[in-house]
This record gives sequence, C-alpha cells and structure tokens, in this order.
Amino acid sequence: MVVEQGDRLILITNDDGLYAAGLRTLLEIAEEFGKVVLISTMESMSGMSQALTVKNPIRVKLLEENEKHRIYTCNGTPTDSVKLAINQLTERMPDWLLSGINHGSNASVSVLYSGTMAAALEGCLYNIQSVGFSLNDFSSGADFTICKKYIRIILNSLTHNRLPEGVCLNVNIPSVPENEIRGIRVCRQAKGSWKEEFEKRKDPMGKTYYWLTGYFVNREPDATDTDEWALANNYVSIVPIQVDMTAHAFINELEKWFNNSK
Amino acid sequence: MVVEQGDRLILITNDDGLYAAGLRTLLEIAEEFGKVVLISTMESMSGMSQALTVKNPIRVKLLEENEKHRIYTCNGTPTDSVKLAINQLTERMPDWLLSGINHGSNASVSVLYSGTMAAALEGCLYNIQSVGFSLNDFSSGADFTICKKYIRIILNSLTHNRLPEGVCLNVNIPSVPENEIRGIRVCRQAKGSWKEEFEKRKDPMGKTYYWLTGYFVNREPDATDTDEWALANNYVSIVPIQVDMTAHAFINELEKWFNNSK
Repeated sequence: MVVEQGDRLILITNDDGLYAAGLRTLLEIAEEFGKVVLISTMESMSGMSQALTVKNPIRVKLLEENEKHRIYTCNGTPTDSVKLAINQLTERMPDWLLSGINHGSNASVSVLYSGTMAAALEGCLYNIQSVGFSLNDFSSGADFTICKKYIRIILNSLTHNRLPEGVCLNVNIPSVPENEIRGIRVCRQAKGSWKEEFEKRKDPMGKTYYWLTGYFVNREPDATDTDEWALANNYVSIVPIQVDMTAHAFINELEKWFNNSK
Repeated sequence: MVVEQGDRLILITNDDGLYAAGLRTLLEIAEEFGKVVLISTMESMSGMSQALTVKNPIRVKLLEENEKHRIYTCNGTPTDSVKLAINQLTERMPDWLLSGINHGSNASVSVLYSGTMAAALEGCLYNIQSVGFSLNDFSSGADFTICKKYIRIILNSLTHNRLPEGVCLNVNIPSVPENEIRGIRVCRQAKGSWKEEFEKRKDPMGKTYYWLTGYFVNREPDATDTDEWALANNYVSIVPIQVDMTAHAFINELEKWFNNSK
C-alpha cells in the first residue's frame, strides 16, 4: 500500500520544549512528507525517559492550525504527549512518529534516559513507524541546518521501507560542517556509561544540595560498529532500537540457577 | 571470590516511596544477606521510568542509622537515588542493588515505564548485581508476605552465581496464597502494550483536563515462555533484562535501506 504524501499523517514531538530550534527544523522537513500534528511542552523535558504523569491531570492547548499542521502544547512528559495525541488529538493513527531533533547526542546508553527516544519507543508500541533524531551539540546555538540532508534521506527511505513491529530508529547526527559528514552508518548501541560527579553546594540557609553532572565513558572506543564510533568519525549513526529488553542469550544459563526450585 | 554475608553491601530503593509496605518487606529480607543502605523518596514515583533530575537540585537526608542499615530519603527519581547513593552515600560500590517490592506488576513492556526496573538497570550500568521485584497487586493493602520465600530463593542464588555485565533481573510475583504459587519460571518479556483511555473532565472553571488511565493487552496470550503467561499461571516470573536495546536481528536488513547513500 502506497501512502500518498498528502495523506500521510505525521506526529511530531520532542523533549526540549516547543521553542527548541531542533523541533522547528524537524517540522519544516516533515511538512515536505505529509500533514503534521505537533505536540510539545512549553518547557524542556530532557532526561525524562519514558516517564508517565499518573498523579496529575494533563492539560492540552491548540496553539496553531493551518493546512500543513496543527500545533499543540501540553503539560505532560514526551511519552504522555504521544499517548494523548494518538488517543485524543489525531483523527486516526499517525503513519509516522518523528521525535527531536534533540539538542545533544542520544547515542549509546543515553537511549535509556532520553525523552526523545522514549517518544519514539512509545510510537512503535502503537506500531507506528517511529524515528528519534538528535544532533551531537548541547548548545542553545546549535546549527540544525546540517541535519536537513540526512533527515530527508532517512524519511525518503521510510516512504518505501517498513520497520518491523517493536523497532524504531535512533538517529544521531555529528555536529560538523555538512561537507565533513562522511555518510550514514547502521550501528549497534555502544557499551558505555555515565560517570557521575555530583556537585555539592550549600544553599543560603547553609543546607547541602546536589547538582547531577557527569560525563560519558565509551567502554569500547575501538569497536567500529557502534554509534559512538560513527559519531566520533563524522558519520550519521542509525541504531535500530527494540522494545523487547529481554537478554535472550542469557535465558538458558539463568534457568540453571533455579532448576532445583521449580 | 566469596563475599561474606557481613561484608555484603546492599543498596535498596523503590518507586513507591519510603513508607510503602513492599519496601519494608524487601529491607527485612535483605538484612539477612548483608548490610543495607536504603534510599527512597517521601512520595510515590511510579511511572518515572529512568527519568533524571537535571533542572533541580537534589537534597538528601539521613533518617535512621543502626548496625543493620542506613535509611536516606531524597527528592529525586529512583534513577537519581541510585546515582546519588553510589556516588555520595556508600563507602564503596554496593555488591547488590535491590529495587521494590513494587506495588503492581512490571511484566512485559511495563519495564519501559517502571521506576523500579529503571533503578535496577541503573545498578547494572554500574556493574552491580541488580534485581527488581514486583508483586502483581496494585492495592495499598497488598500482602507482601507471600513474596518472602521466593525473594530468599533468588537472593540465595545470587550469593553463588553472577549476572553478566549489562543484565539485571525483572522478578514478578503473583498475588495468590503462597501454597498456590507453582514455582519459578525464567521467561522472556511478553509482547503487549497499554491501551490508553484518557478520562476527559472539566475543572470548576469549566476547563478541560485529562487523566491518564489504561489497561494492558497481552498480544501473545498463548505463548507459554513469557512473563505474562507465568504470572497468569501462578508462577514467579524472572526475565533477564539488558541495557543494550539494539535490534541486532534487524541490522543487516536496515543496512540495505541506505546502501546508496554511503
């Protein structure tokens, strides 16, 4: 079944808030591929992972509507936003869910904390073709124009390919001049972790508080098939990410632990 | 290397808050296996997933200290709590991280939203042996005594086995009388998803708001190797969960999408 461009319904969200430059760039490109429903929060929701709002009511507001798009804001997390949009705001199930463009990399284990990728995972739980995009630049002045070419390539490819059920894409784009980008690499998630360094401070009342800071350590810097290697070597990395978190390779071994207690 | 019981350092957290009955049951059992550092929030943090607190400072308070345990409370998410405890509160890297006992199942895709399992995943990012426990009963009056036998079996098994790097355990316990529990089953995460039904209401000012509700749909009810099947058939389910979310089986196919754009 071919979806005509004019018929394609695209849901967009992010975790950097409605006025993030990355979101505006993604909206501009997405409108070339279909009709857009965009939902985002007024404030940044970075690091929200797949959090849900269960103790507070969610409010939503239609901000803008024209032939190309409808723009909503709500007070929920990125995952709430996707659920609310699909269940209450779109006339039918969207064809695509695009999340981002995030200000900062979501490569390696950052996928576990990322609100951007949580929205994409939520999309594929609804069996929507879902992609999260991130630019490897945390700064508020990040230049998103270099993302456009590769996002177009990836979306073009989505027009005639289909992701399997329960799989979405984690796309990370290096922050270098466009002519230095060496192409696209399909990768696996690098092994690594964040090393935390809490900053301990005293408030004006003399009481201690902490700021969470930290830096990422790539535990396999020489492996050339990882997203971290691709980004560090000026490739656009694409990792297929799945909702099934089972460590299948360990099941047989684990069964031996409990053979006597069945 | 054998860790003596008296030397074993166990970090405990949960996402239901400090006064949850499930946390108290887990503390009681953990003290049989080592010295405990417990950190939890005053309020429930259900559905927080692996969210991080990046825009607000985190405060922590030592509430209780004796020979068996130290109990802290903090205002962060379960993931923040683990990071803060490991980096600021424990004298060395804990040997085990135990999370729960959650009030309600974290089987199937609930692992993606669960604060309980996020804490366990965070533990295994630090290469700590980590287990999340959940009882399949959301009610505040849930009876956690039936969990004790199986938690002891699992922790005993952890005293002489080792989880691979990047893998933790998701344990779900059926809420039935202990003599009806048929044993332990090592499983995979069932395919399923939450169907949302937002409840739309009007506030006293006449403005619309939504409550997130929903119910879980098991998309493979006949598969006998899943956690959902095990729970429904009165088995304790144990799923090994990994931090690597790569859909490895789809990498070759995905490479074909982009062969011409390299």
